[in-house]
Amino acid sequence: MTTAAERFAEFATTLGYDDIPNDVVEHAKNHLLDTIGCGLAATAMGIATEGRSTMRELGGIGDAVVIGQSEGMPAANAAFANAMLCHGLDFDDTHSDSVSHVSTVVCPASLATAQAKGASGKDLMTAIVIGNEVVTRVGMATPGAFHKRGFHPTAICGIFGATASAGRLLGNDAETITRALGIAGSMASGLFAYLADGTPTKPIHPAWAAHGALIANQLAAFGAIGPRSVFEGKFGVYHAFLGIKEIDLEEQLSDLGERWETPRIAYKPYPACHFIHGSLGATASLAAGRTFTSDEIDEITVRVPEAGVALVLEPENLKRAPRSEYEGKFSLQYSTAAMLSRGKVGISDYTDEAISEQKVLDIAAKVSYETKDYASYPSEGFPGGVSIKLANGELLEAELEHQKGGPDNPMSREEVSAKYRENARIALSTEQVDAVEAAVKSIDSEDDLVTAFAPLADAKTSDS
Amino acid sequence: MTTAAERFAEFATTLGYDDIPNDVVEHAKNHLLDTIGCGLAATAMGIATEGRSTMRELGGIGDAVVIGQSEGMPAANAAFANAMLCHGLDFDDTHSDSVSHVSTVVCPASLATAQAKGASGKDLMTAIVIGNEVVTRVGMATPGAFHKRGFHPTAICGIFGATASAGRLLGNDAETITRALGIAGSMASGLFAYLADGTPTKPIHPAWAAHGALIANQLAAFGAIGPRSVFEGKFGVYHAFLGIKEIDLEEQLSDLGERWETPRIAYKPYPACHFIHGSLGATASLAAGRTFTSDEIDEITVRVPEAGVALVLEPENLKRAPRSEYEGKFSLQYSTAAMLSRGKVGISDYTDEAISEQKVLDIAAKVSYETKDYASYPSEGFPGGVSIKLANGELLEAELEHQKGGPDNPMSREEVSAKYRENARIALSTEQVDAVEAAVKSIDSEDDLVTAFAPLADAKTSDS
Repeated sequence: MTTAAERFAEFATTLGYDDIPNDVVEHAKNHLLDTIGCGLAATAMGIATEGRSTMRELGGIGDAVVIGQSEGMPAANAAFANAMLCHGLDFDDTHSDSVSHVSTVVCPASLATAQAKGASGKDLMTAIVIGNEVVTRVGMATPGAFHKRGFHPTAICGIFGATASAGRLLGNDAETITRALGIAGSMASGLFAYLADGTPTKPIHPAWAAHGALIANQLAAFGAIGPRSVFEGKFGVYHAFLGIKEIDLEEQLSDLGERWETPRIAYKPYPACHFIHGSLGATASLAAGRTFTSDEIDEITVRVPEAGVALVLEPENLKRAPRSEYEGKFSLQYSTAAMLSRGKVGISDYTDEAISEQKVLDIAAKVSYETKDYASYPSEGFPGGVSIKLANGELLEAELEHQKGGPDNPMSREEVSAKYRENARIALSTEQVDAVEAAVKSIDSEDDLVTAFAPLADAKTSDS
Repeated sequence: MTTAAERFAEFATTLGYDDIPNDVVEHAKNHLLDTIGCGLAATAMGIATEGRSTMRELGGIGDAVVIGQSEGMPAANAAFANAMLCHGLDFDDTHSDSVSHVSTVVCPASLATAQAKGASGKDLMTAIVIGNEVVTRVGMATPGAFHKRGFHPTAICGIFGATASAGRLLGNDAETITRALGIAGSMASGLFAYLADGTPTKPIHPAWAAHGALIANQLAAFGAIGPRSVFEGKFGVYHAFLGIKEIDLEEQLSDLGERWETPRIAYKPYPACHFIHGSLGATASLAAGRTFTSDEIDEITVRVPEAGVALVLEPENLKRAPRSEYEGKFSLQYSTAAMLSRGKVGISDYTDEAISEQKVLDIAAKVSYETKDYASYPSEGFPGGVSIKLANGELLEAELEHQKGGPDNPMSREEVSAKYRENARIALSTEQVDAVEAAVKSIDSEDDLVTAFAPLADAKTSDS
């Protein structure tokens, strides 16, 4: 019987650029642009730059561009440095059914490999779509199950997508990619332990996954072998990580190349956990630019699907006064208070200074929560709601079944461009911001990806 | 409350060379010698060399010696290359209570870091002991539990020991090592999925762990933060990987620096899975150099603790005729047949040619198994037994409660030296074999570890 790894490898080696519907390629391009913007903002803010410093210590040089560093690196190391940056602000995209940050693993791994191999823009986009489709399907087979056990699907599903994507760009054959996927199973990792003290460990997850994907491919190309039943077999991914002895992957495998998950990957309008987005969007619609003081508010109740509680609401006492800017991104209490106090939530609301502002914390202290079963979760996004009882007796209530940026409440191409430009402009000159955006938009006709993305090396940075 | 990571970090930063009992240092030296010998034999046999080739592609250079390569590498990359080689033959040591191959992670990570930092031999031995004590204790908290879920403790416990060890050598302070341990939790991985098709994926496990340990330290040194409750916290190692919500680590932490696990790490007389050793040793005692043909044997029943069945006995039809030399190392049926047919079992019995010999396979076909509860498993080793019914009516039976090489049936210093020399001589000249052995024996007075281990670079190799 053909295994799942063999079928993913077959997909990775046979999909042609012309087999991909135009709108899927357009979505993939927008996600590449969005991901790059997130990485640029992070480097300018000095966030998650430790991966770049660490990889620099390894001393290799190569053609893969590193955001904020003049010298290129070997692909595996550049992928680590960039993936960590792109996830640093937690502002990058998420695919809701697989609860996985897709592009922050797939794009850095693919771009680095494409540059190192001298691949074309069409090759790159084909590989990114392959990666997206594999990550999402590995996760969709067991929605929410990795989270429940404490594993981060971004990393654990991500390494497989990046392995398929990089394998395609490296020109590895299906057998070699199958073996690489098997090896990647023994490199897959990523714990939610960081939630206990709010430490910013999570950006390391896509970095380790992207690095591992390239190492796995290289090992396989040199002849190392991984198990072909890495997905469905005994002690395979679903068995070991989730305790599922019999996994049915047919639904995820049978329509590879027909159903496309890439357009269903959701953008984030807020630089915070995706579980915050539904409820925070509801609050934004109520506030509509209006600001509130603590005195004006009696109590606030936010609502999210139960799966989000451990991530963005508990432990309540800590989430009401985040100990780090990073923890703030995982606090719906703080984020709601910031929206009500300041009338908007953006990257400047998650700094050490911003999370310490007393007038915001006073409002955060009034936030309690309820869980709610939303019909739209998880297959249609990250829903949420809010009820605000004002001191004047007024009750403001709103629900958002489909968070802004998701497939059912999409951000337009212009909105994605605007988000990219706001992120990129703090790291690059206007000319460079334009050049990178133009390179992505016309990537189908790019033959020299090293030159096209060279401006990323000039990004402003404040790192160790 | 002080967390386990904080206590391991405290141990790693405060243990002095003079605090370690002499016999513990002596054991650690013997294990270093044994581990190096295993890596030398692997490179000469062209086994598990893909890690070295892959790391070479990353292009960095440095002072850390790579077995079988003239140029040194940065420590993280050398650690990967060497760890994969040292575990390639599955001939390296195992600590029974934690069911963990200890030295193949700790020694390559420590040696590479020590060379890169210009550390002394005493520094190296102190760090190795630190690493050994951490790996074994992380595993001993839940004996057999990682295996049961399909995770490889060698990799998952190993990365923490190597992180503590490398952190010490790097001169990182306790807070930095605590953070690195937290980061290492999100890098810990290693599946037993390879057992399904007998692929040699396992040598990649210590390599990825050793590489990760050094990357985690470097990230932490640059300011990245991991959760300090990575062991006992929500979604920490025991919770996520094993489903254990409340883990009591006190027994493993309270006597750090007093109880020593290093002397309890077992050597392998046979280049095969440790679960094979008890039963195979029993067979060796019965055969005592005598050889048998298939016609002389009616049936053979081997006995092992139940935990070993999935690793070395099932699926029975495949294990009776291994599909690869690597699968042969995990086949008690084949190994028993090899012992009876050839009168001994060594590295030449696990080659593609050796596993295909019909007269051995004819005997392997007669091997069935029973499980048995041995009082000595798991806390005292890898016991096993055998019953052989000969065609002449004779019944040969033996049990081995403590396998040869374990703490209760030890290999002498001379026996370890002999094993090292037999492994090393296929890769190095006699002068070089002597020089490396002398360097290890007098390591307490070595100040230049780069020169002392330079001969390893000259090891013969047949790789991709």
